[in-house]
Amino acid sequence: MSDELSQTIGRVVPAPENFLDAEKLELARKARRSFMGKALAMGAGVAASAKVVAADGEEAILKMPEHTTGLGLPVVTDGYGKPSKWEANLQRRQSPGLTRVNQASVSFTPLQGLFGIITPSGLHFERHHQGWWDIDPSKHRLMVNGLVKRERVFTMDDLMRLPSVSRIHFIECGANSATEWGNVAVPTVQYSHGMVSCSEFTGVLLSTLLEMCGIDKKKAKYVLAEGADGSSMTRTIDIERAMDDCIVAWGMNGEMLRPENGYPLRLVVPGVQGVSWVKYLRRIEVGDEKYATKDEAVHYIDHMPDGTHRQYTGIQECKSVITTPSGGQTLLDKGFYNVTGLAWSGRGSIKRVDVSTDGGRNWRTARLEGPILDKAFTRFNIDWVWDGKPAILQSRAIDSTGYVQPKINQLRAVRGTRSVYHQNAIQSWLVGANGEVSNVQVY
Amino acid sequence: MSDELSQTIGRVVPAPENFLDAEKLELARKARRSFMGKALAMGAGVAASAKVVAADGEEAILKMPEHTTGLGLPVVTDGYGKPSKWEANLQRRQSPGLTRVNQASVSFTPLQGLFGIITPSGLHFERHHQGWWDIDPSKHRLMVNGLVKRERVFTMDDLMRLPSVSRIHFIECGANSATEWGNVAVPTVQYSHGMVSCSEFTGVLLSTLLEMCGIDKKKAKYVLAEGADGSSMTRTIDIERAMDDCIVAWGMNGEMLRPENGYPLRLVVPGVQGVSWVKYLRRIEVGDEKYATKDEAVHYIDHMPDGTHRQYTGIQECKSVITTPSGGQTLLDKGFYNVTGLAWSGRGSIKRVDVSTDGGRNWRTARLEGPILDKAFTRFNIDWVWDGKPAILQSRAIDSTGYVQPKINQLRAVRGTRSVYHQNAIQSWLVGANGEVSNVQVY
Repeated sequence: MSDELSQTIGRVVPAPENFLDAEKLELARKARRSFMGKALAMGAGVAASAKVVAADGEEAILKMPEHTTGLGLPVVTDGYGKPSKWEANLQRRQSPGLTRVNQASVSFTPLQGLFGIITPSGLHFERHHQGWWDIDPSKHRLMVNGLVKRERVFTMDDLMRLPSVSRIHFIECGANSATEWGNVAVPTVQYSHGMVSCSEFTGVLLSTLLEMCGIDKKKAKYVLAEGADGSSMTRTIDIERAMDDCIVAWGMNGEMLRPENGYPLRLVVPGVQGVSWVKYLRRIEVGDEKYATKDEAVHYIDHMPDGTHRQYTGIQECKSVITTPSGGQTLLDKGFYNVTGLAWSGRGSIKRVDVSTDGGRNWRTARLEGPILDKAFTRFNIDWVWDGKPAILQSRAIDSTGYVQPKINQLRAVRGTRSVYHQNAIQSWLVGANGEVSNVQVY
Repeated sequence: MSDELSQTIGRVVPAPENFLDAEKLELARKARRSFMGKALAMGAGVAASAKVVAADGEEAILKMPEHTTGLGLPVVTDGYGKPSKWEANLQRRQSPGLTRVNQASVSFTPLQGLFGIITPSGLHFERHHQGWWDIDPSKHRLMVNGLVKRERVFTMDDLMRLPSVSRIHFIECGANSATEWGNVAVPTVQYSHGMVSCSEFTGVLLSTLLEMCGIDKKKAKYVLAEGADGSSMTRTIDIERAMDDCIVAWGMNGEMLRPENGYPLRLVVPGVQGVSWVKYLRRIEVGDEKYATKDEAVHYIDHMPDGTHRQYTGIQECKSVITTPSGGQTLLDKGFYNVTGLAWSGRGSIKRVDVSTDGGRNWRTARLEGPILDKAFTRFNIDWVWDGKPAILQSRAIDSTGYVQPKINQLRAVRGTRSVYHQNAIQSWLVGANGEVSNVQVY
């Protein structure tokens, strides 16, 4: 594995002892002459250094660590803090060669190193069509026009005084996991599933804006959302969805949106693929027909086996993936592991996640962490004791509509072999007898 | 107001028009010759520059902004992203002169500029007793000893393989809002209430660890939590609480804890003051008596009117504060505003938040944003049309136990005048006729 890829693996799954078998663990521990443990036990006293004697009689002089005896750093060394230097490998990463231009490319979220359901904003995936900008918010405007009584132009200040909502939602690129259509088997979950993130978004409901502008409810059937950057991203949204839970958002995870995620304004379209979450949002037009823009007539479409293509198929169906253990990680020995992952559905909340460790023959139901929210990540955890033999780990999510995440061959039976987008099949990770985890497809 | 303080104000509340009166707004808008709006309307076409004519006939040549015509920045300019340069003023800030040593001090979270319930980790408040460290996680250990069958020392890898939970909780310093006891009237909500933050924490339940070590359930009454930094922070926790919802946490908002918040390991004690959330956690001892450590016998105690002091009063009672509009902000004109703030309770969830704009004579019930979780922030919002006259804004939270957030004089009637900690009274913001918002006390 190349250096570049090995950097993406994140936290290697730790050494494996059955934590329920405490005595056995103690024995293993003694065999390792755990000096540090003894040093700490002494550290509870006052000595800054101590002579310790291991089980076999070997002696060592151990010093208290500097942080236990010294004066640390003062507050506000960083008015805006950063992660530990020890976590420097946990980064968004670009897939080399995936696109020809770095301004029309992707960086992937390192799901293998993340916990819970909130994606740190610094690690939110990126997908740009003509690069990103840090736009002066005092100069940014949002226009609402079309089938409304009062066409209007809003400043950011105009918008931020309006009644606001805060909601946790996932955003997933329609092309996430696209490599699995071709069984490319990219090595890590960062590259196979890392075009998805989940954040708390704050803004004004699009319905509030449209009501303010006097939307013509008899004629209005669609809205067009348009971005201010050079890609002129434009997407059609059904009026039912526009008037339901779409948010004209300025806030993400408590603060203003990050520039690469659309600062100062983006549209949040819960449950729908990321391309419709138009960044640098500058215009909403209300109309009575679909707009058939370049990014929905030609791109982000599904090539079907009969040669036709499906347009306007933007809902991200129910999906899940195990993030630890996952591709590129190594299990150092057999024993107990916490298997964890994420599930989400563009049609509602997650009802259940099942996990198999034998390639889908047997399934057990995982524990879901709360809160369990509509169109948001749900974190699942399940115990597993690895016996040291090859194993295939899979997760299968079921959402509140009853939809069951399909196998890849079930998906292919309908969608054929020419698809790029909307791949939500069960993901399989092979744990080899040597503990190495790799990306495989199971039919 | 000094430069230093004016920097802390954050987003000034925007210009004030009644957004429901759209025609009036349109008139005001025309009077301002909103060139930008017209330019944008034209921008929907193809011209990169355009001649626009204002209502009074004045002409101007406007160019499309660079970001609409140019090529932006490539992906992964930052493998770990940062906020917009336009948001540089939103920082944690130290209160000058609050402490004599910067390693035993505080930096405050800028609540006035935040949205929703998740505090960005870069803006999480800091409280250090002997500075902060960035400890090598491969060398960090956690010892569990005392009334257990199997005393043990855990590595980080040992811990991170255990069954984990992820939960959203607030953490509040026991001294948050202490200045209000003395009616010091610090100017902004950052300094009056900024020693509170809310994050999603991930880790192993303390009860899981104690069960693993074979806790002596008959004898165990308390645990001691001890930190590895030079302050040797030590705190007693009731065994009922230790076995309930305490978490030995490594994750915060999806990633590893930040160094200034205890990386790689801290104790999460939901509902209890921050000092008990021991950072750089290195030891848990199980005992049958309270430990009466320096930080609970002498510090973090309540001086009562009769000369006694209360110890072990760590639960953060139900509290709320309006974050916008708040002290130091200015309302530029009368009209519509979204009044927003935060509520939390160490005893459960938030049941209701009422808001008054007349100093407590009349109250209206605010909208609560979801999810509404135990011992976590709840964001509230309420509409308000300011008539341009002086107004006093207050919020009053009620939690799931039925407890009602008290007025400051109700709190003083019980606690007297010598308290430093545990001030959870209703906060009042005076909006002057000139629109300036200031911190006042209302009895």
